Amino acid sequence: MGDRYLVGIDLGGTAIKMGICTIDGQILGELERPTPKGSYVDVLKTFRTMVDELLQGLGLTKNQLTGIGVGVPAFLDVKKGFVYEIVNLGWKNVSLKEELEKLFQLPCYVDNDANTAALGEMWLGAGRGSNELICLTIGTGIGGGLILNGHIYHGAIGMAGEIGHLPVRPVGGRPCNCGGHGCLETETSASAMVYYAKEAATKPGRLKELSDKMGTITAKDVIELAKQGDPASIQILDQVSYYLGLSLAQLANVLNPQKIIIGGGVSKAGHFLLDRVRTHFIHFAIKKIGESTEIVTAELGNQAGWLGAARLVQQRLE
Amino acid sequence: MGDRYLVGIDLGGTAIKMGICTIDGQILGELERPTPKGSYVDVLKTFRTMVDELLQGLGLTKNQLTGIGVGVPAFLDVKKGFVYEIVNLGWKNVSLKEELEKLFQLPCYVDNDANTAALGEMWLGAGRGSNELICLTIGTGIGGGLILNGHIYHGAIGMAGEIGHLPVRPVGGRPCNCGGHGCLETETSASAMVYYAKEAATKPGRLKELSDKMGTITAKDVIELAKQGDPASIQILDQVSYYLGLSLAQLANVLNPQKIIIGGGVSKAGHFLLDRVRTHFIHFAIKKIGESTEIVTAELGNQAGWLGAARLVQQRLE
Repeated sequence: MGDRYLVGIDLGGTAIKMGICTIDGQILGELERPTPKGSYVDVLKTFRTMVDELLQGLGLTKNQLTGIGVGVPAFLDVKKGFVYEIVNLGWKNVSLKEELEKLFQLPCYVDNDANTAALGEMWLGAGRGSNELICLTIGTGIGGGLILNGHIYHGAIGMAGEIGHLPVRPVGGRPCNCGGHGCLETETSASAMVYYAKEAATKPGRLKELSDKMGTITAKDVIELAKQGDPASIQILDQVSYYLGLSLAQLANVLNPQKIIIGGGVSKAGHFLLDRVRTHFIHFAIKKIGESTEIVTAELGNQAGWLGAARLVQQRLE
Repeated sequence: MGDRYLVGIDLGGTAIKMGICTIDGQILGELERPTPKGSYVDVLKTFRTMVDELLQGLGLTKNQLTGIGVGVPAFLDVKKGFVYEIVNLGWKNVSLKEELEKLFQLPCYVDNDANTAALGEMWLGAGRGSNELICLTIGTGIGGGLILNGHIYHGAIGMAGEIGHLPVRPVGGRPCNCGGHGCLETETSASAMVYYAKEAATKPGRLKELSDKMGTITAKDVIELAKQGDPASIQILDQVSYYLGLSLAQLANVLNPQKIIIGGGVSKAGHFLLDRVRTHFIHFAIKKIGESTEIVTAELGNQAGWLGAARLVQQRLE
C-alpha cells in the first residue's frame, strides 16, 4: 500500500483551492483555479483535472490517496454529503459525496467551508494542541466553526457554528440577511466597518477626505486610519471590538473553549484590534473563563480550508 | 451476575436525593435526607447509610450495582472526580471519586449537578430522543447544562454550560457575583424577578399591596399576579421573557440544539412564560433555527439530578 496521502479542496465562490498533504499534514503541493460558473458537473470536472495535475506533478498515483475532503460554502447534510444549496454558485440539491466517490473511486467527505477552516487551524494552525475551539473568519461576512472534543460540531440539523448570526446588538443593530438583526456580522464584519465608515464620512475628517478622493472606503482603510490615530476610525474599531468581545464572552461563558481563533481580512488589524477585543471579553467573561481563554489570530490564512478538508478524511477514518 | 442496577445521588446544599434504577431507567426506589453540615466525611457516611437502606428495602445487595453516580453543586475536574470547592458546604479540594470508590468498592462518577440534571432530562425527561440539548434550571440562580452528541459537554476546563452567566444585558444590567454584569441570572432568575418586583412595589399597585401585606414578594407571586392581569407583573414577565428569548437565540444560532429545556421554579409559569420566550426567541433566531428548535419545560423535576447521575455510570461504561 505504501504511503498514504490526503487531498483537500476548498470550494469558494470565485476560486477552488486544492492541496495534497501527508497524513501528518506535510504539504506536498497546492493548486488554485477559478471556480467554473454553471453546473456542478463543471466544478467536478475541474476537481478531477486539478487532482490529476497535482498527482502528476508529484509523481504520485490515485491509489496512493487515502481520500478526498471538500469544504463548500453551503448548508448541507454532512453525513450524507448532500448539499442543499450553494447560493453563490447556483447549486441546489447536489449529492456531492456520492458524485465525488463515483468520480474518484475514493472515500470522499464534505463539510461546510467555515468548519473545515476551523478544523485546519486545529490541526496545523493557531489551534494546534487544543480540542475546544471557537473559530471565526471576519471578512465581508463572518463565518464560524466550533471544534468541540476535537471534532467539528454540527448541531441538530448541521447549522451549528453560525457565529456571524449571534444577535449581539438587539437594540440599534442593523437588519441581517438571516432574518434577524444586530447580528455579529452586521456589526463587526468588513462590510459593517465600511457601513459605519461611510456614515462617519458624512462629517468632515480623514474618512471623508479618503472617501472623496477614492470614491469609496474599505475596512483596510479604516484599520489603517485608526492605526494612524484618526478618532472616527478608532471609534469604529472600538465599536467592532466591543461587540466582538461581548459576543465572544457570551459564547465562552457557556462553551468554555481553550482558544478563540479569529481569521479573515479584519483580523489583519492584529494586536491593534485583538487587544481591544480582549479587554471587552475579559470585562464580560466569568473570571476563570476570562483568565483561561486565549484569543489569537488564525495562522493558516487561505490554506486553512483545504487543509481542514484533508483532515476530515483522516478524522472520519479514525 | 444477574440484574444490574444504578444508584444516582444528587447532593444539594440542603438535601441529598438518592435513587436506584435499572439500566433502562426504571425507578425502583428513592430516598431524601438533609445534607449533613460539617466535613465531607459526614456526607459520605450519609451516602453509605442511604445506599444500604435503599438496597435493604429492595432486597438487593451491593454486588448487584453497576456503579454510583453523583451530581454535586461544584466546580470540579470531572475526569478525576476531584471537587475544587462546594461553597454552600464548605468543601475544598476533595478527591470525591476516589473516596467514593474506596467506600463503595464500585465504579463511581461525579459531575456538576446542573449537568446531571440535563443528562437526566435527556435520558428520561423532556429531552428523550434528542442528542443536542440546551438545558437551564431557573430558580434562585440559573444552572445550565449542554448535551452535545448525546453527552454532557464540559469544555476546556470543565466550566461549559454556565448559561446563567451569559451577559445578555451588557448595558443597564445588574452586577453579578461571577464578576460580570447583566448576566442571564441577574435578569431572569427568581431572585431577579423579586428584585424587579420590589422595585415596582415602590409605586402603588398590586405588587405594593402584596408587599405591604406579606412583608415580601416571591417570584411565584409575580407569576400569579401576571396571570391575573396585573400590568406591573406582566411587565416583569415580559422583560424576563425578552432576555430569556434573546439569550437562547444567541446560543441556539451558534449551537443549533434540537431542544431547549427550561426547568426550575420559574418554569412553573408554564405557557404563560414559554409562549412569550418563544416569541422573542423566534424574533432573534436564524429562520431555520427558529423553526427547528423546540422550547419545552423540564419533566423530571427533582428527580432529574439523581437520574442523570445514575445515567453517568451507564454512559461512562459504554
